[in-house]
Amino acid sequence: MTQDLTISPLRPVNFTRVQLRDSFWLPRTEINRKVTIPAMYKHLKETGRLDSINPDYRPGDPSSHHIFWDSDIAKWIEAAAYTLSIHPDPDLENLMDQIVVKFGALQRADGYLNSWFVSVEPEKRWTNLRDKHELYCFGHLTEAAVAYFQATGKKQLLDIMVKYADYIDSVFGPQEGKLHGYPGHEEAELALVKLYRVTGEKRYLRLAKYFIDARGTTPHYYDAEARRRGEDPPRANHEYHQAHLPVREQTRVVGHSVRAMYLYSGMADVAKDTGDRTLAEACEKLWEDLCLRQMYITGGIGQTRSHEGFTFHYDFPEETAYCETCASIGLVFWAHRLLQMEKDSRFADAMERALYNGTISGYSLSGDRFFYENPVASLGGHHRQDWFRCSCCPPNISRMIAGIGQYVYSEGETEAWVHLYIRGSGELCVGQDNVRIEQDTRYPWDGTIRLTVGVSNPAHFTLALRIPGWCQKASLSINGTPVELDGIMARGYAKIHREWTGRDEVALSLDMPVERVSSHPSARQMSGKTALQRGPIVYCLEEADNPVTPLARISLPYESELSVEYKPDLLGGVAVLTGMGEVINDQGWDGVLYSSKKPVTEPFPIKAVPYCVWDNREPGQMLVWVRT
Amino acid sequence: MTQDLTISPLRPVNFTRVQLRDSFWLPRTEINRKVTIPAMYKHLKETGRLDSINPDYRPGDPSSHHIFWDSDIAKWIEAAAYTLSIHPDPDLENLMDQIVVKFGALQRADGYLNSWFVSVEPEKRWTNLRDKHELYCFGHLTEAAVAYFQATGKKQLLDIMVKYADYIDSVFGPQEGKLHGYPGHEEAELALVKLYRVTGEKRYLRLAKYFIDARGTTPHYYDAEARRRGEDPPRANHEYHQAHLPVREQTRVVGHSVRAMYLYSGMADVAKDTGDRTLAEACEKLWEDLCLRQMYITGGIGQTRSHEGFTFHYDFPEETAYCETCASIGLVFWAHRLLQMEKDSRFADAMERALYNGTISGYSLSGDRFFYENPVASLGGHHRQDWFRCSCCPPNISRMIAGIGQYVYSEGETEAWVHLYIRGSGELCVGQDNVRIEQDTRYPWDGTIRLTVGVSNPAHFTLALRIPGWCQKASLSINGTPVELDGIMARGYAKIHREWTGRDEVALSLDMPVERVSSHPSARQMSGKTALQRGPIVYCLEEADNPVTPLARISLPYESELSVEYKPDLLGGVAVLTGMGEVINDQGWDGVLYSSKKPVTEPFPIKAVPYCVWDNREPGQMLVWVRT
Repeated sequence: MTQDLTISPLRPVNFTRVQLRDSFWLPRTEINRKVTIPAMYKHLKETGRLDSINPDYRPGDPSSHHIFWDSDIAKWIEAAAYTLSIHPDPDLENLMDQIVVKFGALQRADGYLNSWFVSVEPEKRWTNLRDKHELYCFGHLTEAAVAYFQATGKKQLLDIMVKYADYIDSVFGPQEGKLHGYPGHEEAELALVKLYRVTGEKRYLRLAKYFIDARGTTPHYYDAEARRRGEDPPRANHEYHQAHLPVREQTRVVGHSVRAMYLYSGMADVAKDTGDRTLAEACEKLWEDLCLRQMYITGGIGQTRSHEGFTFHYDFPEETAYCETCASIGLVFWAHRLLQMEKDSRFADAMERALYNGTISGYSLSGDRFFYENPVASLGGHHRQDWFRCSCCPPNISRMIAGIGQYVYSEGETEAWVHLYIRGSGELCVGQDNVRIEQDTRYPWDGTIRLTVGVSNPAHFTLALRIPGWCQKASLSINGTPVELDGIMARGYAKIHREWTGRDEVALSLDMPVERVSSHPSARQMSGKTALQRGPIVYCLEEADNPVTPLARISLPYESELSVEYKPDLLGGVAVLTGMGEVINDQGWDGVLYSSKKPVTEPFPIKAVPYCVWDNREPGQMLVWVRT
Repeated sequence: MTQDLTISPLRPVNFTRVQLRDSFWLPRTEINRKVTIPAMYKHLKETGRLDSINPDYRPGDPSSHHIFWDSDIAKWIEAAAYTLSIHPDPDLENLMDQIVVKFGALQRADGYLNSWFVSVEPEKRWTNLRDKHELYCFGHLTEAAVAYFQATGKKQLLDIMVKYADYIDSVFGPQEGKLHGYPGHEEAELALVKLYRVTGEKRYLRLAKYFIDARGTTPHYYDAEARRRGEDPPRANHEYHQAHLPVREQTRVVGHSVRAMYLYSGMADVAKDTGDRTLAEACEKLWEDLCLRQMYITGGIGQTRSHEGFTFHYDFPEETAYCETCASIGLVFWAHRLLQMEKDSRFADAMERALYNGTISGYSLSGDRFFYENPVASLGGHHRQDWFRCSCCPPNISRMIAGIGQYVYSEGETEAWVHLYIRGSGELCVGQDNVRIEQDTRYPWDGTIRLTVGVSNPAHFTLALRIPGWCQKASLSINGTPVELDGIMARGYAKIHREWTGRDEVALSLDMPVERVSSHPSARQMSGKTALQRGPIVYCLEEADNPVTPLARISLPYESELSVEYKPDLLGGVAVLTGMGEVINDQGWDGVLYSSKKPVTEPFPIKAVPYCVWDNREPGQMLVWVRT
């Protein structure tokens, strides 16, 4: 990494300038708007979360999760605001205004704002940064405030959060007399950068950088803080919080996976806006550790429930894979940030992997049921729920879906970037030129993409088209003339530099056969197994289509041919894979548990559906990795 | 099952009448006597256990495990007593006498005896049968008392336990005014039958039967007891204690695995001594559930650490297999009891499986290090320890080894039974005849067994020789004349009925090729894998012989030929298996986690050693189930 980060970073094209007209994402955004967001509001209300921000709230049933209830409300506001940007809805806006009024009334004179520490434990403010999520809630409310301001132009929540941020800035920092702490659950860092970007106030960027720079330094703030609370010796697994080392010395992705992703996203933000290459380099090392040694094929991350996080290299338990929905969403956030900075398709590859698989598996096609955990195998007992006691995931997937458009394009001074292929259009500003890119494609079910590049006046710029990492063979033509890709590839993007005249047509064809994917030989759980993938879509076997118990009886020899068929009426419209496999039968196993006879197999027609839509039919087993 | 159980049960031939002269078990009993028993005494002393039975003991470091410290001491006495029976040792006997004196002094005037409830919580006697192990400690002390009496003729401890048992009999029972409870951790049941057998006092047998009959009936004693302690509603997972149903209605092996085995052993004892066929039938159903659907190939049982017990049918996690040493020992106890009652080799098969694999894996060849858990795969981090805070396993394996001789032979009115093939001899009483059986064999490393049947006067009786379940082809000759096995087999035993004249020679040849063992197709973790077994010995790959990480890279095609070689200097002398397998290499996987290229394999010479001796060399990975 040698470029000066501040010179020519890309800007993502905001979802307000991206229109979707596809059959994959558009229906999901519609369900999100029409079903998910109202359903979540109902849950926020019924579970007491909305009451808890009333200034006269007195705690009822004590819930330790209340310490981050503010963040559930905040993520709902953020999600709802994103939909408002595209679909004005006065009733929804009114509900949000009421919440904003409540937060305003809850805010203390000094700017402090947190429903738990205002109403329940006012004497404990800032006494346990490590565990108590105060700065985390601040961060989510700040993201909500920015989103709400950008969607409606209304400044009330933004003003509240500016006041809170100013107060936090007066409390934390390197100066003597200030607290030298930092968030136990990271999130404030990236939020402060958002606040800086919308307000222009550099103090917020500096505070974000301070939180990142102070993290993991010695003497350790969490230990000192714990001693002040009377814990001696303090319980300390600082890896859980990614606070075991200063962040620039961290090379292994460890601890709680959502915390990690939010920290790394904040690091990328600060690197981009301050030009701090040491932070970008730290991100680069951590990225490699994650994506080469700890990421599931679905883009799921965080292998174990025990600390909701990472275990060790090449460890990929299947049935017990934790893969929290929020963690994959966090991976999308981080990847998206690194992509703007490093302009390398491997970040877009991981982002796409998570977007099409391990994130959206987190909610039902009906939009009102959610996974917290996204395992890659199930014995049939894992099902989505309509809400959780710790309900971080539902509003998180909702805000991701609502903002999906922002991941498609980027714009630079001289380049228009297409990261994802989704039918629809984007309005980009490339230097001084307005560029409208139209995409016509059936992606992810088909690899043919027709792009129309519209400009009002002829303009010179580079169109950068991502050639996905999953694609082994691609071809390109411009206005019907084939173009050799070899000569124009850079970091995974085909760079077309020319004068664009108005309605130029670019045809990109991505070969999209069914792939038998193996994992690194060090991934012991996947030895002798393959997963099915076509384009960005990872497949799985569901018991609904493969009525065999256990599914592990099924094997799929390497030489088996696999067919693809698009089924418009199945699971919202999906391409289904079929092929002839084998299944071990029960013959001769009556009354026997172990035997020296070789198991007998018989042919078995296998049917695979996209992983992201599993558990949307009758309950049953599921399996991603199939024996070969 | 139609026979009247009380008419012709077998009697195991006590280890005092069995002499071992083999290279497998004899060295283990010697190590047990010379190393394990002294080492355990040291631990009992150093950890405060021996102090805790001083009448003036005042608790220091509060240890919740102290509630069953008495049982650790008791099992040590039992183990030491067994060795005394064969190897008189005045110093050892003296140590035991000192302990007996302490227990005598600790006993209350009413007969009650329990170090925790005498010294620490005297007011809580019998207030929590479910969790507090009082009757469990009673049971182990009773087993110790019987063993000590039989080894030395000294009655002190037996008298103490008779007094305690009389007191318990006055407290518990169906009569009004008595407590209607039963042990939370079963053990008293089988101990009371032992006490009955040595004293002839029928009240003890009746009390054992009462404990079994009352178990799981409603209104539930544990709930009532919990309410008396102020728990309302009481926490209740009665499956953990096998108290979810009356025992005769139980058909699934559930809950804590050691508790289950001790209960079922007690049920078998009561069935045998009372002729209660309904109990024997319950045992039969539970046996089938265990051995056909929940037993590891090693004879390990209890799949999960979470409740130290059973999960569900055909669930066999490998690295996380709990398989507590004590549980496999309990399986040996239960199998041995059912074998005497039902005279069916499938009980001996399971007993042998556990004896040669999952029990003795629990201690090191050096005799002073122990496994609590016996997984069937390890990433290299699982190693034996010299003691545990909860140290049930070390003295348990010690008493099993010390008493190993009792599992070899049984005697009946008209039959002499040989269950296990171990070089050495047994002195049996068959009806009125003394029969001396000599075995000359290298079993388990070779399947040739020469038996000499010695009688002082010619006698008619049946010699019943077990044809092991693992053996596909056996042949028999008597005094050099071949005998067709087909005509004389009954329930897995070759029954040779004839007049034995003095020094008749029986030659049994058990074919002992290397077997590739598969598991039932419903066992999903083993799909596409086989284990190596030869005779009763289950094999594993250790990293010491197969330096590959992870071991899962290795596969062993079905058609690979496997060779056997006995290595006298390796691991105490073992037969080693070798063969040509394959290993997935790293070629092309640099910087890649997922790829659609097929993994490349290369030939790899595999070496397997007996599972029971793994982790006796340099630390490393281990694997039982190898991909085919």
